[in-house]
Amino acid sequence: MIQQLEITLPQLRRGYHLITSHIEKQLPPLPEKGLLHILVKHTSAGITINENADPSVRTDFESFINKMIPEGDPVYIHTYEGDDDMPAHLKSSVIGAEVTIPVTNHRLNLGTWQGIYFCEFRNFGGNRRLVLTIYS
Amino acid sequence: MIQQLEITLPQLRRGYHLITSHIEKQLPPLPEKGLLHILVKHTSAGITINENADPSVRTDFESFINKMIPEGDPVYIHTYEGDDDMPAHLKSSVIGAEVTIPVTNHRLNLGTWQGIYFCEFRNFGGNRRLVLTIYS
Amino acid sequence: MIQQLEITLPQLRRGYHLITSHIEKQLPPLPEKGLLHILVKHTSAGITINENADPSVRTDFESFINKMIPEGDPVYIHTYEGDDDMPAHLKSSVIGAEVTIPVTNHRLNLGTWQGIYFCEFRNFGGNRRLVLTIYS
Repeated sequence: MIQQLEITLPQLRRGYHLITSHIEKQLPPLPEKGLLHILVKHTSAGITINENADPSVRTDFESFINKMIPEGDPVYIHTYEGDDDMPAHLKSSVIGAEVTIPVTNHRLNLGTWQGIYFCEFRNFGGNRRLVLTIYS
Repeated sequence: MIQQLEITLPQLRRGYHLITSHIEKQLPPLPEKGLLHILVKHTSAGITINENADPSVRTDFESFINKMIPEGDPVYIHTYEGDDDMPAHLKSSVIGAEVTIPVTNHRLNLGTWQGIYFCEFRNFGGNRRLVLTIYS
Repeated sequence: MIQQLEITLPQLRRGYHLITSHIEKQLPPLPEKGLLHILVKHTSAGITINENADPSVRTDFESFINKMIPEGDPVYIHTYEGDDDMPAHLKSSVIGAEVTIPVTNHRLNLGTWQGIYFCEFRNFGGNRRLVLTIYS
């Protein structure tokens, strides 16, 4: 069986945000076994699974990925949407814009230290749409 | 229900190519709700979701990712298949070689600005095989 | 139909390890058509599809990704778990911690040169748990 819904995330500041419980609250009752797929419907944001405990990890993601994929690189020709735009597109493909998570015993089956990060790569990204698909 | 097919992409030049409509033309009628999974059956090519409008974004992907994962790095020992080979393997895992996309109302449910990029990381990659799996 | 199991990988040294046949041995008989999803339940390890023949490719992955995402970068503030910890979190999101692979004719449908890499990003990562989900 497939269940599907679209949700809107409120505007979040640039950076990495733990959204596991926000996602869980939007979901219908989960099946005994299955998978949850999440797509971010934008090309300057991302989604990934990472450490859910210490906020300093999310701070370091923002600092380091900004250094790995910097603004103002001289090779960029796609510059008319702002300095943060082209790096945001690159980050979206390096980090990814969709993720699949197993469902077991009616719950997301992540590791103890794993959570879902929503990654806002723009300075002012606005509201963001996600498609959630549950298959069981 | 699972439907599956393999398709061959014609040889594409090194770089990032928007293949959304090419993929859509190969697909059988899509279900009301479901997911499409695409695997690139190669280790020196990739697939990702990104900006479908301005070709300068794809140009910048090629320029910047070549800088982030350069040819001729002194750490490489896997060099006998050409300067473009080891960077192509690295890019394939950083960008990814498979992607899942929701299907809603018989269509791919991507954001307005999202398209599917096929990423050819070799100078002469030849034909490329993809496995498409639709589950509904 | 969904089948699901959890497996434990024995402790592996830091680096990239070809685990295709190890995974295949743990799986129940595979369906004629379907998909296999694998989640690594850890935030300092990863999983990806790449070249299954020459071990020098895995060596170069370790060397190059260590250079792209180095230890001891001055921007890191999450440092109390060791120099290898924050880079391991970053690598886990850049390489990815989950992958989906098509199943065709009761076998994993990978390309000739493709295998599954388990990526141990810590110096001493211990045993690692994976969730395998087969849908058909």
